Amino acid sequence: MENFEFNNPTKILFGRGAEEKVGVETALYSKKILLHFGGGSIKASGLYDRVTASLKKAGVEWVELGGVKPNPRLSLVHEGVKLCKEQGLGLILAVGGGSVIDSAKAIAMGAVMEGDVWNYYLGKGAPVAALPVGTVLTIPAAGSEASTGTVITNEEGWLKRAVNSELIYPRFSILNPELAFSLPKFQVACGATDIMAHLMERYFTNTTHVSFTDRLLEATMKTVIAMAPKVLENAQDYDAWSELMWAGTVAHNNLLNTGRTGDWASHDIEHEISGIYDVAHGAGLAVVFPAWMKFTYHHDVNRFIQWAVRVWNVEMNVFDPEATAREGIRRMEDFFHAMGLGTRLVDLGIVDDRLKEMAEKCTDKNTRTFGNFVKLDQNAVQEILNLAR
Amino acid sequence: MENFEFNNPTKILFGRGAEEKVGVETALYSKKILLHFGGGSIKASGLYDRVTASLKKAGVEWVELGGVKPNPRLSLVHEGVKLCKEQGLGLILAVGGGSVIDSAKAIAMGAVMEGDVWNYYLGKGAPVAALPVGTVLTIPAAGSEASTGTVITNEEGWLKRAVNSELIYPRFSILNPELAFSLPKFQVACGATDIMAHLMERYFTNTTHVSFTDRLLEATMKTVIAMAPKVLENAQDYDAWSELMWAGTVAHNNLLNTGRTGDWASHDIEHEISGIYDVAHGAGLAVVFPAWMKFTYHHDVNRFIQWAVRVWNVEMNVFDPEATAREGIRRMEDFFHAMGLGTRLVDLGIVDDRLKEMAEKCTDKNTRTFGNFVKLDQNAVQEILNLAR
Repeated sequence: MENFEFNNPTKILFGRGAEEKVGVETALYSKKILLHFGGGSIKASGLYDRVTASLKKAGVEWVELGGVKPNPRLSLVHEGVKLCKEQGLGLILAVGGGSVIDSAKAIAMGAVMEGDVWNYYLGKGAPVAALPVGTVLTIPAAGSEASTGTVITNEEGWLKRAVNSELIYPRFSILNPELAFSLPKFQVACGATDIMAHLMERYFTNTTHVSFTDRLLEATMKTVIAMAPKVLENAQDYDAWSELMWAGTVAHNNLLNTGRTGDWASHDIEHEISGIYDVAHGAGLAVVFPAWMKFTYHHDVNRFIQWAVRVWNVEMNVFDPEATAREGIRRMEDFFHAMGLGTRLVDLGIVDDRLKEMAEKCTDKNTRTFGNFVKLDQNAVQEILNLAR
Repeated sequence: MENFEFNNPTKILFGRGAEEKVGVETALYSKKILLHFGGGSIKASGLYDRVTASLKKAGVEWVELGGVKPNPRLSLVHEGVKLCKEQGLGLILAVGGGSVIDSAKAIAMGAVMEGDVWNYYLGKGAPVAALPVGTVLTIPAAGSEASTGTVITNEEGWLKRAVNSELIYPRFSILNPELAFSLPKFQVACGATDIMAHLMERYFTNTTHVSFTDRLLEATMKTVIAMAPKVLENAQDYDAWSELMWAGTVAHNNLLNTGRTGDWASHDIEHEISGIYDVAHGAGLAVVFPAWMKFTYHHDVNRFIQWAVRVWNVEMNVFDPEATAREGIRRMEDFFHAMGLGTRLVDLGIVDDRLKEMAEKCTDKNTRTFGNFVKLDQNAVQEILNLAR
């Protein structure tokens, strides 16, 4: 195990009707805020009315900025920053899924700095302050509701880049599983895949003596595998949604990577795919992960075997251990298929040949390697993309 | 799953040499503090010197109060409160195990109130403020380093009572597994038992649809079961200590009871035993738990079967499911025995017959029931104590 520091201050308010507390929680930080959301779904569902009623009751004024899209855009972040600065707003309340929350975090950093917040995403400097962020989560997926991360897409060049900072842990996050009832099945499947991906990125590590967090990760993966089919079968299954939603938050709140270094190459590769093709992040991950695993499993076949046996209930093949690992990968693909997702680039509608371009972008023309479990250069990325064909 | 709120703000600093950061972390809160500890072991080990050097370097002055005993006493708490009030101390730094930390939390509450802090332990009023507490943990066991709890013994009547309040979450806790190398084997075994007890108290619940936290609890129990024998075999096994120490903190930091109601009757019964006989808390728990389980397992035999199969690797006996449950309890007893602990009252040296007295004290002469999984009255407690003979 590695030395670590862990301090996740996000207050979680979980359960039916939890959004009624949003006004009181918000008022602890500011009485004039930015209310940030995506399309019209929160208005259609009545969530917008309940949230604004709670804000009013707590004496909180708000300025609205809707329109966040999947793979949230820098241009909208700039609008939010401008609103915060001009109107002296003191908190960003994100009502939505990971895209809305990531956009809110970007605005929170941008609102208290000179210059362009995109610089942080390019690795030029690190934030030293941020406005507080609160969230009302509607999609169990990204884990952004209790994480240090934000991913933004710059439309100029379709660059998708991330910032991690403890300054942007949300101060509170409201998780009501009922808010997920109305999600389209495709989005549910993408969300469950994103949660699995967060767990697998952490699981595949070169750090030794991490059996406690191994087991916590396995426990969380087994929960996702058990619950995602249930909510796809019955969108009103509150109990299954509760487990899936809470698992999605714990998956990414930094507890499960304490003392270990995750890989994160698959996320980087997927960011290039969704940056160019604007595919759903989860759908991209269902394509990248099987290919990444086929490329890397020889690096530590025992780790893949443990994962196959414990998470996917594969029986250990002592005469051909590697077959055990491969069967785990196969079952993961089956899991994605059963949720209605494809596991090949063609399933994303990607039939042209920009694989080399993606491999170049990922590695800045082969000037950097990435991934911690296995270091990937441009050739490695291209080989993984070939395996994803 | 039940609705819940979760917000654990304790900052964890984990790993070799982490205690060197104690001065900097302390200075964030106060420059004049109470340094609270137990016997002379921290001086003998050199930890005292390293901690005070770090405090000095950060410009922090301290007043010392040592002498905390296992089952920490109210009289020493009163001394600490007096010191804090008289000298205007701004933080309690606990260097030690759960007893020292629990004592520090009591002082932290007492220092900012009028009247006797013991009233909170009697349930007369709840704290509205507390001084900040920081910890340098030397014994993985009580989980007090990231919990809301404190248990104090009042020597007048040997009453052992608890307070739970979010106000006394430590602000920071320093966990260096090396600090546990010098623990006597008996104390290690008691600590591992205490951790198991925290997990089992949470596991045995009537709340339904808690499969995620079930799995997290099982993961943590399996870690304790794997690691405790390793550190008993080799006290210098840093890797095993790391897993055990971190598991001990996570076991009790409130994450693993999110959305579920634990039982906690066994703790209450043990508190009466150790209140009267001053036995080690973990040693008492190793006696109470098997008896409590034998008394309660019919209440929800499926939950005991799941526990036996997943945690203790008992093969499911489909023709006699209850035998599966009983085999789980037997393996738990074996685990305690293998660590050198007894599982009967006689092993604690308790051969007189004050069982009725304990059962009376536990239930205020049969005027209250306690335990959430199964409600216990005086007769039930006496029956459990009989099963522990």
